[in-house]
Amino acid sequence: MAVGKSIIRVDACEKVTGGAQYTADLEPKGALVAKVVRSTIANGVVKGFDLEAALAVPGVVKIVTCFDVPDYQFPTAGHPWSVETAHQDIADRKLLNTRVRVYGDDIAAVVAEDEIAAARAARLVMVEYEEYPPLLTPEEALAEGAAQLHDEKPGNLIAHSGFKLGELSYEEAAEEEGLVVIDKKYGTQSVQHCHIETPVSFAYMEKGRIVVTTSTQIPHIVRRVISQALGVPMGMIRVIKPYIGGGFGNKQDVLYEPLNAYLCTLVGGRCVKMEISREETLACTRVRHAMDLHVKAAARKDGTLVARKLTAYSNQGGYASHAHAIVANTSNEFKQIYHDEKALEADAYTVYTNIATGGAMRGYGIPQAAFAAECMADDLALQLGMDPLEFRRRNCMQDGYEDPHTHVKFNSYGLRECMEKGREFIGWDEKRREYANQTGPVRRGIGMAIFCYKTGVYPISLETASCRMVLNQDGSMQLMMGATEIGQGADTVFAQMAAQVTGITEDRVNVISTQDTDSSPFDTGAYASRQTYVSGKAVVKTGTLFKEKILDYASYMLKRSMDTLDVKENCVVERESGEVLLSMEELATTAIYSLDRSVHITAEATSHCKDNTFASGACFVEVEVDMPLGKVKVTNIINVHDSGVLINPKLAEAQVHGGMSMGLGYGLSEQLLFDAKGRPLNDNLLDYKLPTAMDTPDLHVEFVEINDPTGPFGNKALGEPPAIPVAPAIRNAVLNATGVAVDSLPMDPQKMVAHFKAAGLI
Amino acid sequence: MAVGKSIIRVDACEKVTGGAQYTADLEPKGALVAKVVRSTIANGVVKGFDLEAALAVPGVVKIVTCFDVPDYQFPTAGHPWSVETAHQDIADRKLLNTRVRVYGDDIAAVVAEDEIAAARAARLVMVEYEEYPPLLTPEEALAEGAAQLHDEKPGNLIAHSGFKLGELSYEEAAEEEGLVVIDKKYGTQSVQHCHIETPVSFAYMEKGRIVVTTSTQIPHIVRRVISQALGVPMGMIRVIKPYIGGGFGNKQDVLYEPLNAYLCTLVGGRCVKMEISREETLACTRVRHAMDLHVKAAARKDGTLVARKLTAYSNQGGYASHAHAIVANTSNEFKQIYHDEKALEADAYTVYTNIATGGAMRGYGIPQAAFAAECMADDLALQLGMDPLEFRRRNCMQDGYEDPHTHVKFNSYGLRECMEKGREFIGWDEKRREYANQTGPVRRGIGMAIFCYKTGVYPISLETASCRMVLNQDGSMQLMMGATEIGQGADTVFAQMAAQVTGITEDRVNVISTQDTDSSPFDTGAYASRQTYVSGKAVVKTGTLFKEKILDYASYMLKRSMDTLDVKENCVVERESGEVLLSMEELATTAIYSLDRSVHITAEATSHCKDNTFASGACFVEVEVDMPLGKVKVTNIINVHDSGVLINPKLAEAQVHGGMSMGLGYGLSEQLLFDAKGRPLNDNLLDYKLPTAMDTPDLHVEFVEINDPTGPFGNKALGEPPAIPVAPAIRNAVLNATGVAVDSLPMDPQKMVAHFKAAGLI
Repeated sequence: MAVGKSIIRVDACEKVTGGAQYTADLEPKGALVAKVVRSTIANGVVKGFDLEAALAVPGVVKIVTCFDVPDYQFPTAGHPWSVETAHQDIADRKLLNTRVRVYGDDIAAVVAEDEIAAARAARLVMVEYEEYPPLLTPEEALAEGAAQLHDEKPGNLIAHSGFKLGELSYEEAAEEEGLVVIDKKYGTQSVQHCHIETPVSFAYMEKGRIVVTTSTQIPHIVRRVISQALGVPMGMIRVIKPYIGGGFGNKQDVLYEPLNAYLCTLVGGRCVKMEISREETLACTRVRHAMDLHVKAAARKDGTLVARKLTAYSNQGGYASHAHAIVANTSNEFKQIYHDEKALEADAYTVYTNIATGGAMRGYGIPQAAFAAECMADDLALQLGMDPLEFRRRNCMQDGYEDPHTHVKFNSYGLRECMEKGREFIGWDEKRREYANQTGPVRRGIGMAIFCYKTGVYPISLETASCRMVLNQDGSMQLMMGATEIGQGADTVFAQMAAQVTGITEDRVNVISTQDTDSSPFDTGAYASRQTYVSGKAVVKTGTLFKEKILDYASYMLKRSMDTLDVKENCVVERESGEVLLSMEELATTAIYSLDRSVHITAEATSHCKDNTFASGACFVEVEVDMPLGKVKVTNIINVHDSGVLINPKLAEAQVHGGMSMGLGYGLSEQLLFDAKGRPLNDNLLDYKLPTAMDTPDLHVEFVEINDPTGPFGNKALGEPPAIPVAPAIRNAVLNATGVAVDSLPMDPQKMVAHFKAAGLI
Repeated sequence: MAVGKSIIRVDACEKVTGGAQYTADLEPKGALVAKVVRSTIANGVVKGFDLEAALAVPGVVKIVTCFDVPDYQFPTAGHPWSVETAHQDIADRKLLNTRVRVYGDDIAAVVAEDEIAAARAARLVMVEYEEYPPLLTPEEALAEGAAQLHDEKPGNLIAHSGFKLGELSYEEAAEEEGLVVIDKKYGTQSVQHCHIETPVSFAYMEKGRIVVTTSTQIPHIVRRVISQALGVPMGMIRVIKPYIGGGFGNKQDVLYEPLNAYLCTLVGGRCVKMEISREETLACTRVRHAMDLHVKAAARKDGTLVARKLTAYSNQGGYASHAHAIVANTSNEFKQIYHDEKALEADAYTVYTNIATGGAMRGYGIPQAAFAAECMADDLALQLGMDPLEFRRRNCMQDGYEDPHTHVKFNSYGLRECMEKGREFIGWDEKRREYANQTGPVRRGIGMAIFCYKTGVYPISLETASCRMVLNQDGSMQLMMGATEIGQGADTVFAQMAAQVTGITEDRVNVISTQDTDSSPFDTGAYASRQTYVSGKAVVKTGTLFKEKILDYASYMLKRSMDTLDVKENCVVERESGEVLLSMEELATTAIYSLDRSVHITAEATSHCKDNTFASGACFVEVEVDMPLGKVKVTNIINVHDSGVLINPKLAEAQVHGGMSMGLGYGLSEQLLFDAKGRPLNDNLLDYKLPTAMDTPDLHVEFVEINDPTGPFGNKALGEPPAIPVAPAIRNAVLNATGVAVDSLPMDPQKMVAHFKAAGLI
């Protein structure tokens, strides 16, 4: 069994020895360098440029401004193209923008012989603006008289969606007598992905076509967006994706590839490189949407959840990017994770503002949903005098749940078991008792949170993936995926899957890690925790076909019927007895070089996935809160995941570690801050408080492995879920420790001290 | 019709603008540089090294000697692997050799941080030898007591083969009364390919695998030979072939890739680059075999050829490379091109010597055969008092000819028509009369030569080729070939073929010019004038499958039966009426992005070719011979080719131009000279007399286009043939002009003056 083993990552040695080649490592000799000239206002219009000083810098090759770029609007979200216009992403920007919507907006670009000349010239570009007051929040942006950021969206409202479950409205349902109710506003902040490798790409022309090598999660989508942005047919564009140093959703946006592609066409097809600095990355790429989540909830004294109402405002920032898909997802998880006996109402708004643009980030709206839903659960439980775990047991999503709108099902249900495992690990019952009556400045508490998460995007959007396999002469194989390794271990699990299906052992599966839209099979890329599930199905389909071709050739060589044969451990064997009949090396060598029947054994197939299933899980946290210092120390933490069968348990554990770390930062320290002008205040990794190893407790992980009948190997989503429940679990542990409910993130010392003071605790 | 059009080469703009990337252009930043330490003797044994001075050079990273390399013998010839041991190439060398067999043999290698350090250190490596007398000719090498160059081949004889046609021996057949006989020795010289781009490669390791980028004609074979040389499984090796600056057969040998691959493994997988200088290329890569061709021939007074005997000695040089395959081919053409009424005997010997190693070069033994056979034809005709054209008409290969050994057939026969076209163009009959009785120091003459040439290597060896096609979203396609573009225009004709078969126009066929053994379809590569024929069949097979998949999807979209549909000019049309029903762009976009049925349309197929056919042709030359100066000036020349249907007439013409130019150099000026020690005397392009544009007359080309029923589009060999008939045609024109028969090449002024003096003409 290749699947289920904790083999070492196929790229482990390369990555730890520095041998792995990333985009910047591959930059051709003699490449020109491009720098973006960025607006120094957050809201306004560029009226003109004075380029004289900039053009005089030695080494400057070309300066292009927002007045020169092609008149094509394009979207940046990394979604599959929709053949239906209504479902296409919002095309709300050009390569460079005259209408400035964020501080650091792309208004011009300099191409120069080297980094220094480019940077110097970019600084010397003089800009004249017409400036408007920056709109920092949905409230400001929706206010009457607010400047309109995009003509296509009057009043700065990108979208509003809502749904209602049950016959009654929330208000009607809440009229029932004797209910306990809450009415609270929860808030989440802007955070950034902080992948170590900032966005970087280089582009040149070849045979009249544009070739872009870039650090992206979605090479095939980048190809399509460049095509839209430049008005060039897709076949004339080639996108190459080497190893990437983290993405987490930010590289599920097509950020600077179109501009890079365009710039190379202006210098006769010479190679132009663009590397976005950390400061630019924090301020001018994407962030996790800040949201205001107004929650009303009503429960009976016995703990039964009767009705809820969510009103969510998502702060989109200057450009649409993934836009309303995020907060729509937020509403959905809010709906799915708990059941309301009578009514659920949800309204979600996505609003343009002038802060950094929100986009995809690990969890895609669900960390915000979980914060609101899980705060609500504990806040209600507290009012009910009920154990929060018991509240969840009573009201959480049930086995066999099917979403009434998308019809996505819980095909394998491990949520309750996850809660049980977490409870036991953390010592829930004893600790809840133990921490019930504390005094003094330092207190301890435990908390929890649960979540559910879809696997891929079906049926909201397209799920399609292809795979190609090639038999080498030595009986090893090449595995070409359209799906992308972005650090999560995809290549390793695909190799394991290919081994499992074909009978060629995983050490002889060479995964081609680079995607090249000219030759790689099509796949939409790494996002939505989809690849192991959706692209995994393509591996199964292709591997089955590949093995058939191998057995067909074996049948020819051995003069035996195909159905008496099988492949095991790199050998063709007698199916029944397992007797070894032929090594794969002999078969492969013969297949290619036979003078009688030469066949190059390869297989390729598309899997159009029309399945989905819920993964779920729980986080349990123990904290020690030093109230005078405002310091929340996580002393114990566990994530328990229901992600179906694990393809590689060690990698799965590592995936959870990464997500938990992200959740810790989200809960305790991270926040991208803006001043009143909309300028980022902490656009660097000194001031932006990403947790380090020093801030991180031992991270515990457990799994509930239940075979999911829809997964290619019984597996389901794991990529994003680990990041979801950590922040609310900490928040609920703090509530348990101190009785103080913190309703916004992050729970940094400054905020905590203010809360404890207000509560009279310090 | 895409086939038959003279479209501009797909790589034309890239190549003339300097945009095309060759191996050296792709060298990664920070690559180490390797230099080979070469023997300063031609025959002997390395006894030891003193590396102290070399190792002291700053920047030297590693020095490896012939005492350190793995103990694997490997072959270098670019042939398909044979599953039968007896047919495998001779494995007669190691990565570095202790037994020195040529001047400049590879005895050690230096790896350093830069070019200068590597070169300096290589010069400082001190070597102790045991030296033997150099063996420069087959005669010397076969003499008793000659030092043995390879233990596996006693007496330095690599191989001897022979055949006999007819009941009688030559001597018996020649006993017939009244025959005119000749008994002559013809000789051809060593010449070198002189591709502009010398051998260059770089190698590094990735995931424990070795990646070699190299200027080669045969990437898949390079992969296999590296595997043999290093004892590493083939799947652990990846070979990439970018554009190459000429090969002509020299890059059908695996020259330095195995050493380059090995060196990178010694420096922790860091990238190591090896660039072979012009001097090294001339002396230490491959040359066209010098041959001694002893011909006896007997004809009746009416011109009927009764019997011939060929005894050929091929001077192999120090290593086997393609070895006996070359002179065996020589014997075959000698057999095929003329018919002997009673007897033909042929004996061929391939002998190791200490001069530069013979290998594959455009024509593969046939230029030598044609020189002997065509000299013989004119020498016999002269004795018979017969017009040489008439002699050829009477005795040449006939329509429907089938080789008695290989059973290769003349499936389409244009030889006679070629002779007729050439005759008319050059004004044969009038000029023969006009030049019959000349006096004075400057005389004019006309001559001719004919040839035939197989198309690919079936049935001697394997002919297999694969192709893959991918439909882009805009309805354009990617064409991936295993076959290689080596300057001959292969990519262009493949694009035309793909267009012809699929209905997607050639401007929308993107050929992937780089071969990568990890992902490119398998193909043995560019040699034997095989690709347009053999690999062309793979394009047809794959294209047919690809179009079927397109029509299947069209049938789904249009809800019409597939067999009522066709693809024309990038549209799906109604088969009968030609009515346009759907654009390829709409189909392609829908196929990928359909929420109902998403399919990534690709196709891949292997064509195992079990056909062969003869191409043929003639060259007619007019010369002006200045006898006191010894100068032969070609005043008019035409090649007429029977190569079946032309895929791209302009490219075909250019191909013939190149071959004719090579033939001019072979005939008049080129010769790699060695001193008595076996040291090359003219290993540079100043002293080695490659003809330049200044030496080249207008080159005329005509074709006889006859559909060959076995060719994918009625086409057959054209790559190598143009180089074959030029030298003997010039020789025969000189004979016509002066009555002097020059029986060895080249006909340079020094030699000509000696001949004219001997004949009393000057």
